[in-house]
Amino acid sequence: MERTNVAIVGMGTVGTGVAQLLLDHGDRTGRHAGRTLWLKRVVVNDVNKPRDADLPEGLLTDDLTTVTDDPEITVVAQLIGGLEPARSIMLQLLESGKDIVTANKALLAEHGPELFDRARELGRSIAFEASVAGGIPIITNIGQCLSANQITSLRGILNGTSNFIVSQMEEYGADYSEAVREAQRLGFAEADPAMDVDGSDAAQKLAILAHLAFGARVHWSDIPRVGIDQLDPADLGYAKELGYRIKLLAIAQLNDCLELHVSPTLVRMGRPLAEVREAYNAVSVVGDAVGRVFFHGLGAGQMPTASAVVADLIDTAVGRTKLTFRTLELWSQREARVSLTDHADVPGRFYLRFSVDHHPGVLAHITGALGHHDISIASVIQHEPSQDGDNQVVPLVIMTHTAPEGAGQAAIDEIDALDCVRQKGVRMRVLD
Amino acid sequence: MERTNVAIVGMGTVGTGVAQLLLDHGDRTGRHAGRTLWLKRVVVNDVNKPRDADLPEGLLTDDLTTVTDDPEITVVAQLIGGLEPARSIMLQLLESGKDIVTANKALLAEHGPELFDRARELGRSIAFEASVAGGIPIITNIGQCLSANQITSLRGILNGTSNFIVSQMEEYGADYSEAVREAQRLGFAEADPAMDVDGSDAAQKLAILAHLAFGARVHWSDIPRVGIDQLDPADLGYAKELGYRIKLLAIAQLNDCLELHVSPTLVRMGRPLAEVREAYNAVSVVGDAVGRVFFHGLGAGQMPTASAVVADLIDTAVGRTKLTFRTLELWSQREARVSLTDHADVPGRFYLRFSVDHHPGVLAHITGALGHHDISIASVIQHEPSQDGDNQVVPLVIMTHTAPEGAGQAAIDEIDALDCVRQKGVRMRVLD
Repeated sequence: MERTNVAIVGMGTVGTGVAQLLLDHGDRTGRHAGRTLWLKRVVVNDVNKPRDADLPEGLLTDDLTTVTDDPEITVVAQLIGGLEPARSIMLQLLESGKDIVTANKALLAEHGPELFDRARELGRSIAFEASVAGGIPIITNIGQCLSANQITSLRGILNGTSNFIVSQMEEYGADYSEAVREAQRLGFAEADPAMDVDGSDAAQKLAILAHLAFGARVHWSDIPRVGIDQLDPADLGYAKELGYRIKLLAIAQLNDCLELHVSPTLVRMGRPLAEVREAYNAVSVVGDAVGRVFFHGLGAGQMPTASAVVADLIDTAVGRTKLTFRTLELWSQREARVSLTDHADVPGRFYLRFSVDHHPGVLAHITGALGHHDISIASVIQHEPSQDGDNQVVPLVIMTHTAPEGAGQAAIDEIDALDCVRQKGVRMRVLD
Repeated sequence: MERTNVAIVGMGTVGTGVAQLLLDHGDRTGRHAGRTLWLKRVVVNDVNKPRDADLPEGLLTDDLTTVTDDPEITVVAQLIGGLEPARSIMLQLLESGKDIVTANKALLAEHGPELFDRARELGRSIAFEASVAGGIPIITNIGQCLSANQITSLRGILNGTSNFIVSQMEEYGADYSEAVREAQRLGFAEADPAMDVDGSDAAQKLAILAHLAFGARVHWSDIPRVGIDQLDPADLGYAKELGYRIKLLAIAQLNDCLELHVSPTLVRMGRPLAEVREAYNAVSVVGDAVGRVFFHGLGAGQMPTASAVVADLIDTAVGRTKLTFRTLELWSQREARVSLTDHADVPGRFYLRFSVDHHPGVLAHITGALGHHDISIASVIQHEPSQDGDNQVVPLVIMTHTAPEGAGQAAIDEIDALDCVRQKGVRMRVLD
């Protein structure tokens, strides 16, 4: 059987999983590629570090030139995280004629245009299935399987750490910091989970998908985003009372322009997205021909991510990636096909919660402020205060009808300034 | 832009949808293929029949040789249903050097080995994404995206007609024949829905997936199957009382051997497969690296199916299909990688319902018969008879622990022969 020589650069969790699949299941990749994917070199920082993978003698090196100078190696799984030296190494590998497979979404979100331009100039390809939604093959599904469609809507749970934390808070009544510690204990959150819980990670993935599905041109940092790091268990309780669950959703919605944002959202129970638990990811895509297609799977973890990397290695070895890469609408030289909606104009229903004095006339003040901004009310929850006495503060929960984002923000700013309001109001979007 | 000339043979519902996508959305296919997919010829039986599609002058013909003799046409969407003349036309098209895209699952299930052999001999390809699960790209996901995995389990709701009928029975309390009429009225069932409701259609699709995912060699008619055509609304009610919904599941489960069958199954509520409603399809796949991935979408209908056909046309025009087709484990010359489990040995929990005399000792007779076959009982529902009097017949519902299929059948045969049992017992599998 013919052989494609492969190298791995970076032997962390995912790299170890990829090596295992290549070394232990050569029969499988041989069957699906019609050729052997032969792991010829593994480049690491420190060859003496103890490792989980049982690598054959002579594979491990700390010298990248053993890959770049070896013309027999044609495909490289570049699995170093972060921006540098990942970016420089990727460029070196491209210059030396290698096709690349990567799982590094942060690198693509930051330096995608440079890397893709360089790959195209050099006639090379970059495959990146593992960079979004781990084991869910969403890149191939959008870039290839649904290519007869104009995608009109894309809603994703793209950050498994956030979904795990919110699930813990919802199911076990944990508060945010307890849930984060549990996620860290179980390996679902890093020691510093900031990029996960503040919505940045989901925005990076959404940026990649928005390029691919809509021909958008947007830097992830320009996508409006709110994370789950301010989420109060009280809101999970009220959401449940109203028939919703809270999920960190990444949304791309095409009308005349493209709306992009990441935010905690009340999703009506029974909708597939509402039922995504633990560290799972999910993506709901609407195409104008196919209708709604829903994907659900593990968005991270060693073997789900390795599954995506090895599928890309097979696609690259077989020659499919080269054909697909040419026409991908991702950091291409073409002009953007859509412009982005001004975030203030994006319509939505809102869930609002205020802590207010338990006085006569308070509800009138608040509904008056909503009225100033043409926001009408769909329902209200106000429970009686738990104890008698003066200076009581009660929560007031309001579900609105559809209104623009800007009006929602202006109304809540006005309400926060009222004397009867005791702390900053909470505002979240609602998906019915 | 370079051009790939395409023909459509067969202008039914799906053909019309494919023509619409090619004619109205050339920009889209051009963008994703990097070349124009130019519809050059449409072959039909009767050129004078009124049609929904607004075809340009000169496209329509009843002469297949205008395609087979035209070397400019390289890809043909063969969209004639049934076995003949579809088979002969497909062979003619292959002989004349065309690559084929088809949605005809019955033809593949029956004549797949012959057609695939011939295509390989001639260096041509057959793409068939639309043949299973309509708009869900399950063929590409299994054949390409999950190729780093050994698939270990595949469970599908693959027949939208059956799922629609059972949903109607469940949600509106319709009986079977009412639900069939409603499905026919809405276009979800054909005038003669026999192949849909008796499990044959699902078995044909399961056979294709089992070849693809497991390297099995099996003719669809050898897959044990039970349809929904005998389903009694009473069982939907008891299932609900027990916390389950009934779904027509197509199952492939790999242990030492491969278990394949199609049958109405009690699926625990809350599982994604239990929540698939109306005419939707869904597939839940487990791979040893990726874990469980779940796909949900429209399994039939004009535009979802056309979406799959046009994606295949793009893949074929671009050259991806040719690369994939070479290594597909579908009717290849390779030996089967798995043998099939003897159906009698397949383990499962059972839901059983009997109509029995309301006499002392009846439960003892029935549990005794189960005991003879080593089947232990997990739970029992027996309600009081609705009226007093002699000769009362009451339903007895039993959920068992896991037992082999053969023991389940033998026990129910023994119970059916008891004097206290008034009509043939009902037995369905349970998925927890």
